[in-house]
Amino acid sequence: MAQPSVRRAKCLVRYWHHSQRTLSVNITNRCFSSGAAHPEETGHKYNKRVFSGIQPTGVPHLGNYFGAIKPWVDLQKEDGTEVILCVVDLHALTLPQDPTKLRENIRDMFASILACGIDPKKSILFQQSSVSQHAELGWILGCMTTLPKLEHLPQWKQKSETMKEVPLGLFTYPVLQAADILLYKATHVPVGDDQVKHVELCRHLANLFNKKYGFVFPKPKVITGDLKRLKSLRNPAKKMSKSDTDANSRIELTDSDDVIRQKLKKAVSDFTSYISYEPESRPAISNLVNIHAAFTDLLPEEIVEESLALDTLAYKERVADVVIANLAPIRKEIVRLRGDTSYLDEVIRSGADRAAGIATDTYDKVKQLVGFT
Amino acid sequence: MAQPSVRRAKCLVRYWHHSQRTLSVNITNRCFSSGAAHPEETGHKYNKRVFSGIQPTGVPHLGNYFGAIKPWVDLQKEDGTEVILCVVDLHALTLPQDPTKLRENIRDMFASILACGIDPKKSILFQQSSVSQHAELGWILGCMTTLPKLEHLPQWKQKSETMKEVPLGLFTYPVLQAADILLYKATHVPVGDDQVKHVELCRHLANLFNKKYGFVFPKPKVITGDLKRLKSLRNPAKKMSKSDTDANSRIELTDSDDVIRQKLKKAVSDFTSYISYEPESRPAISNLVNIHAAFTDLLPEEIVEESLALDTLAYKERVADVVIANLAPIRKEIVRLRGDTSYLDEVIRSGADRAAGIATDTYDKVKQLVGFT
Repeated sequence: MAQPSVRRAKCLVRYWHHSQRTLSVNITNRCFSSGAAHPEETGHKYNKRVFSGIQPTGVPHLGNYFGAIKPWVDLQKEDGTEVILCVVDLHALTLPQDPTKLRENIRDMFASILACGIDPKKSILFQQSSVSQHAELGWILGCMTTLPKLEHLPQWKQKSETMKEVPLGLFTYPVLQAADILLYKATHVPVGDDQVKHVELCRHLANLFNKKYGFVFPKPKVITGDLKRLKSLRNPAKKMSKSDTDANSRIELTDSDDVIRQKLKKAVSDFTSYISYEPESRPAISNLVNIHAAFTDLLPEEIVEESLALDTLAYKERVADVVIANLAPIRKEIVRLRGDTSYLDEVIRSGADRAAGIATDTYDKVKQLVGFT
Repeated sequence: MAQPSVRRAKCLVRYWHHSQRTLSVNITNRCFSSGAAHPEETGHKYNKRVFSGIQPTGVPHLGNYFGAIKPWVDLQKEDGTEVILCVVDLHALTLPQDPTKLRENIRDMFASILACGIDPKKSILFQQSSVSQHAELGWILGCMTTLPKLEHLPQWKQKSETMKEVPLGLFTYPVLQAADILLYKATHVPVGDDQVKHVELCRHLANLFNKKYGFVFPKPKVITGDLKRLKSLRNPAKKMSKSDTDANSRIELTDSDDVIRQKLKKAVSDFTSYISYEPESRPAISNLVNIHAAFTDLLPEEIVEESLALDTLAYKERVADVVIANLAPIRKEIVRLRGDTSYLDEVIRSGADRAAGIATDTYDKVKQLVGFT
């Protein structure tokens, strides 16, 4: 089996900005061993402060859930770890947005994250635009970044090749991303492979600032790992994505039981009727096994073994049963939270306050060190 | 006489960011006639709201005084005109700064502007970094700006040709400048010729925003005019500048009587001993006549006429008398204000509050329109 086992996927993360990647990370090997910053070094009481951002794309799909939200819930359970989660609406503006839809998507993202198990009293969950210091620190770090530094970022190279009139925001967003992370003196940042270079830029800027002005920012460590994506149900060559025009390509957390069953029934498979786990040669059916495995924490081979008697159609029904059973309580909670406007308002408000408390402390120090105050 | 008369120079302005230009502007012809925005259109009670920024370069020299600060004081006297002045410390970071020196320079700039006659109760005088919305609106406008738009700006072309590793801040500062102006819904912006294209970008962004999201920003009008610079006392081919390594090249507002007299005595002249006003053929002596004229509001030819009996040396003494007589009360007031720490603190604090009041109103509306709230 070429793929890493799903059971090892303790820390599946999805990072902000256009990345739809799902990662499986063995935290024990990849993250703790990289050496958490010492509390004295960071100035906060936790051994590990994780910062992560997610785009306000509305109700997440299974790719988002296993790629970002569930890993955050797992991190939240760790002793000595503080989790700070940011719905990055400033980043969202780097691509065109409809204001009404964006407003709705922000609230749906909050409701979804809460429904999945993030406790807003334990973790800090907040909206980026409600904390002014992101843009402010972004400006200061921008003055310490050179154009070549940004032009050499692989994601930029790729984007600028395909677009003619690139918005400035797409060019400068890695600097804002660095501000996002540094403002909270994060020690650990879970990212997809495509974002590793951006965290390197962040580390470079932290270092530059500390050297020029005095120590403020611990250099954040990347939490990354073996690449693992949930695929489109309609085309296993593509990742599961919110931007796919075919809604049948993804399962969203608020899909009804019937819709889930229908989508899985319509999921492409191949001309072989038995179940096996061969991601290279049978990507469509292996994708279903991955979804199944992610929910049950069974190994793919265990799933294959228990499904020996099933043909593709029957196996799709089996996967649908698993998905429906697991998503039903989440969906119910999202719908409930969507209706509880005043609670959602309060979570957004208090998250902003808690985040702003940290951001203000950091940025006040920055202002003093650069000579503004 | 090829040069416009100094008496016409009612609105000498110096704009923010690396521009050392001194402008003489006939407001009546160039500014009012361009049509002030109607109060209903701008949403504020003034016919005209002028926004201007100045770099925190410390105590200004005569070029700064006649190029920016005196014209502001004149604008402050106009009925129906509100003047908002910003010490642009965020912009200052686009070039390397020593924090201790920057902090001192910011306070010296405040003290100098006050000493020159800006009334902080009438006009709004504030520090850019104390109002978070500059960077925040800057980010949003950056998402509406394309890279080619910035790459085509003449000042950028010029800069990027001479620098290898250009800081991002130098590339993006026209966007922050647009945010500076739009945040206050300014109707008029006094700028040097080198900044006209930047105000055009600002107008373009105002238009783009208004069209996409709904009307918020009046399109600011440029106040510009016939170029007129005070020159270096050591080399009349160069403008008077803070960055000149030779302190004898400029007269600063806090220079002592003796220092002023010495600097003028050492000012380069030519091999002709009589006084005339011929900026092309006798730039050095004409520069002294310009300084003289600026302080007295006499025409250069009137000055020449009354100086017929003087040789160069005697005329330099005459100019020194005029400069000393006019600068003495300003110098005294700067020194007094520098020492009155608590008053200066209070001006900086209350300016920030007043500016933030307007900026918050504007940006709250922006946040709502883009879909953040």
